[in-house]
Amino acid sequence: MRLESLKLRNFRNFIELECASFLQVNMFIGKNAQGKSNILESINFALSGESFRGAKSSEILRRDGAVTNAVVEGSVSRLSSTDKIVCDFTNDNKQIQLNGKNSSKSKLRQKYFSVIFCPESLSIVKNGPAERRKFFDDFIDVISIEKAQIREEYVRCIASRNRVLRNALFGKMSHKEAREVLDSLQPIFLQLATKLVSARVETIKSITPKAQSIFKGIFKNPNVDISVDYVISQQSAIAWSANQVYDRLSARSDDLREAEQRVGQSLVGPHKHDVRFIVNGHDSRHYCSQGQQRAMILAYKIAQVLQYYEVYKEYPVLLLDDVFSELDSERRKSILEIFKEIPAQIFLTTTDIEERKDFDKKKRIKIFKVKDGIIE
Amino acid sequence: MRLESLKLRNFRNFIELECASFLQVNMFIGKNAQGKSNILESINFALSGESFRGAKSSEILRRDGAVTNAVVEGSVSRLSSTDKIVCDFTNDNKQIQLNGKNSSKSKLRQKYFSVIFCPESLSIVKNGPAERRKFFDDFIDVISIEKAQIREEYVRCIASRNRVLRNALFGKMSHKEAREVLDSLQPIFLQLATKLVSARVETIKSITPKAQSIFKGIFKNPNVDISVDYVISQQSAIAWSANQVYDRLSARSDDLREAEQRVGQSLVGPHKHDVRFIVNGHDSRHYCSQGQQRAMILAYKIAQVLQYYEVYKEYPVLLLDDVFSELDSERRKSILEIFKEIPAQIFLTTTDIEERKDFDKKKRIKIFKVKDGIIE
Repeated sequence: MRLESLKLRNFRNFIELECASFLQVNMFIGKNAQGKSNILESINFALSGESFRGAKSSEILRRDGAVTNAVVEGSVSRLSSTDKIVCDFTNDNKQIQLNGKNSSKSKLRQKYFSVIFCPESLSIVKNGPAERRKFFDDFIDVISIEKAQIREEYVRCIASRNRVLRNALFGKMSHKEAREVLDSLQPIFLQLATKLVSARVETIKSITPKAQSIFKGIFKNPNVDISVDYVISQQSAIAWSANQVYDRLSARSDDLREAEQRVGQSLVGPHKHDVRFIVNGHDSRHYCSQGQQRAMILAYKIAQVLQYYEVYKEYPVLLLDDVFSELDSERRKSILEIFKEIPAQIFLTTTDIEERKDFDKKKRIKIFKVKDGIIE
Repeated sequence: MRLESLKLRNFRNFIELECASFLQVNMFIGKNAQGKSNILESINFALSGESFRGAKSSEILRRDGAVTNAVVEGSVSRLSSTDKIVCDFTNDNKQIQLNGKNSSKSKLRQKYFSVIFCPESLSIVKNGPAERRKFFDDFIDVISIEKAQIREEYVRCIASRNRVLRNALFGKMSHKEAREVLDSLQPIFLQLATKLVSARVETIKSITPKAQSIFKGIFKNPNVDISVDYVISQQSAIAWSANQVYDRLSARSDDLREAEQRVGQSLVGPHKHDVRFIVNGHDSRHYCSQGQQRAMILAYKIAQVLQYYEVYKEYPVLLLDDVFSELDSERRKSILEIFKEIPAQIFLTTTDIEERKDFDKKKRIKIFKVKDGIIE
């Protein structure tokens, strides 16, 4: 998968940009606030129709009273075909076109995939369980249609459950009636919940060995150890059988029956579970340095790239926004070594010129200097 | 205010550390995961009895089966006196002693103050309004006893209001009864709410000119502009009079009366307001680069240091964890220039040796090399 060309108009701080000469590694170098991350964001729009910074359409338009419309146009090749993707932004709308026809984020997702590492990625470790679940769930959606379906069905099932619980809480339905509906939903709820847990655990187990070896490579230390634990009600469940998961969820669901009625919400199930990143036996959220956390998330992101290749025999595009900060010079070097070994197309931003030297030897790198919304 | 000496035992990855030779600027240099941030965290314990990373007592103890106790001991001078502060950690408890007598975080807060900038500080911009409110509210508590009292009373008032609303929701109280209590609370609620808004706006207005000039200094550009807006129900309220605030809160409280009963919570008041960081007229949360956001938070933190001096004629201690990352070399240099002008005692961590050169000229700097829990 490769981005062949990129055109921008009125996108963030870019008036016009046209670029048709990307190589395998593309490095955007510039001072702070020149537009480096904006370029990565635009590339991600071309690949997925989405901002990795959660930006709304109105935030994309260049700040200039006269600007009412912004455009990202990308040409992306995959295997033998090349597609033209256009994202057209107005203040309150975004339209996606694929080869001249109206399209959507979900259609792009079926064709293209990009793995993004940016400063915000650290929130996967630092924030609550929701972001960690999302990290793996989003990847499940990409990697397996079957597992994505299980997830979709589970989300619908929980929505129904919650609707019933809420209706009972607000008196729109009697508690007896609600109980009957919930009881009839219970077998399918437990089944879907168990399947979703299995899907997550399988995904974790498939990418962890890859992440492990990348992490050891970054720290040049065969003795460091990273893994991910799956946590159900404060208990490590990574090694549980499907039956164990089912029994546990079922028992807990019985226990929390009344509490669920009181709050009008489903309190048991995979939407409450945690996935914990473990370094040398300790929860990375509390015991790791900033640099270790960064290297660990990066290792799991690169593991996703490798896993995607295993499934689709093609590499996703890797977007790396300010990947080197907070890391010491040895760590930076090891990460560059790893990038050189991965045939994925890479776009990265940095404020320092130093890192380029190492890449130059192989001549597969192109440097773009970014200054105030212009590539020099 | 100065940290004169520091002793650690079994704190994080430090078995033993003793240091009595701090200067005005103290730089901890080391590779990733050697313990640099742990030292800053221990200094913050000596000054405030708290971790700036929100660590629990059990997370402080060195990971070694035999360790059951950790100690931080700091000697801190302020004006003419010097105090000895000891924090003693066991797995589930922390004890603070000040000059040999049992003490508490709040007692330390009355005597000492440290301003901390760390990677997590960026969440002030990135996350929701709660963290931005906290940033200013915590400073209000330090800078003005009067305003801190208003805040405390408001928090108590909201707690009472919420209790009544919850009791009515869960049928422990009739809606009529609840309404009567809420009506009797309403005048004091509106008065406290208005006072708290004024306290926040005053604090914002007092530190913004300082932050402004620091930010211009970092970007070496007289035309960049930063400010903070106070936002009530999506409207800019930074220029409102107390009467305007009162009327607005009162009208909105009337409007949301029923909604409050439905959810059992207070939906109007300063605990719902936002404070927005504005750069060149745009909300920094959406329009700023990572480097700009970092520089802006740093500017507001340094403004707190200067404001503290204005009030107490003494500088707080400034702790800077990985302050240089994500910034280009020009920005790093300007920040170092600014640090040199502030007579506050500074402790900072970095992975790069480069920054020290510039400081050395004035000979007020001490370099500590940190390697695997040892200062070399």
